[in-house]
Amino acid sequence: MSKVTCDIAISADGFAAGRNQSLEEPFGEGVGQVLHRWMFEEPEENAEVIERITAAGAFVMGRNMFGPGRGAWDLDWTGWWGDEPPYHAPVFVLTHHERAPVAMEGGTTFTFVTGGIEEALAQARKAAGGADVAIAGGAATVNQYLAAGLIDELRLHIAPVLLGAGERLFDGVSGLSLDKVGHAGTDLVTHVTYRVRH
Amino acid sequence: MSKVTCDIAISADGFAAGRNQSLEEPFGEGVGQVLHRWMFEEPEENAEVIERITAAGAFVMGRNMFGPGRGAWDLDWTGWWGDEPPYHAPVFVLTHHERAPVAMEGGTTFTFVTGGIEEALAQARKAAGGADVAIAGGAATVNQYLAAGLIDELRLHIAPVLLGAGERLFDGVSGLSLDKVGHAGTDLVTHVTYRVRH
Repeated sequence: MSKVTCDIAISADGFAAGRNQSLEEPFGEGVGQVLHRWMFEEPEENAEVIERITAAGAFVMGRNMFGPGRGAWDLDWTGWWGDEPPYHAPVFVLTHHERAPVAMEGGTTFTFVTGGIEEALAQARKAAGGADVAIAGGAATVNQYLAAGLIDELRLHIAPVLLGAGERLFDGVSGLSLDKVGHAGTDLVTHVTYRVRH
Repeated sequence: MSKVTCDIAISADGFAAGRNQSLEEPFGEGVGQVLHRWMFEEPEENAEVIERITAAGAFVMGRNMFGPGRGAWDLDWTGWWGDEPPYHAPVFVLTHHERAPVAMEGGTTFTFVTGGIEEALAQARKAAGGADVAIAGGAATVNQYLAAGLIDELRLHIAPVLLGAGERLFDGVSGLSLDKVGHAGTDLVTHVTYRVRH
């Protein structure tokens, strides 16, 4: 049966991003790629995990993950990922500002949803056609879906680094039970997968 | 070379205890043994890890780990661990209130240190006679030692549970670099060991 999954990279102290995210520093001041070194420096050792991150039939992400802009849209902005984003599937972007869908190369389409998290998930489920739906991030979006009991499988990728402040995974989330499914990892990451009961 | 180690059990959201710790609920309201099920339900699978927790030559712990009392000492209180605590070594308890040492069965002695964390560590190093010193907890004590750059090896035991609030590991800690040494685990825990550079 299809499920709602979520992959998220966090620091050992539980942050998915530092403070003051911006165009120049998408993961926050001074954070650079420290949460994702395992993806860039150990792509082979982590190949299976990396492949699974983009294996869903449709994706949901927060506007702050889609881009650094806030308020009215800069229509030139089509995401961080260049002409061919790695999703190769429909991506639903949560926003308060309407915008026409954007079709990218390689099958990724960005559809902008102003109706809230349940509406975005419903659209993603329909678009996935029976495949899994992935909540792609960032932390604030993941926390909303967790708090609403809408994520079935949570896959943490814990980097050996402390951020000290920023966007914290699980902020405002309570009342969920976790079953551990498995763990794996390398020197640069510990992967832990939980099934979420709600 | 001998090192300063720290084993601490935390929830997936980073808490070492919940809210309102008490005599009846040492790990906080409603927490029970959820952070430590792996020790009690899977002692064989986790035997090596459990044995390592009490393998140091001397220990330091905060008063709040030693007992639920605050302020002046109740001299009848000799810890949570019965007549023969599992340490079998000198244990230095941080406190603001002087108290004479207490010798327990099996080689554990509780010595009460009012001179602060560096003084307690110095006494523990001397007592350990070249063996490792372990910072035994709780979170507030561990955070003080981490923030002071005095812990060399941090061994997290991450339970598949969310507490939502309480005593958070890494609170107020920044500026440390972590090198991951290894991971292991079962369905009830993920063990992650970090070397701390400071």
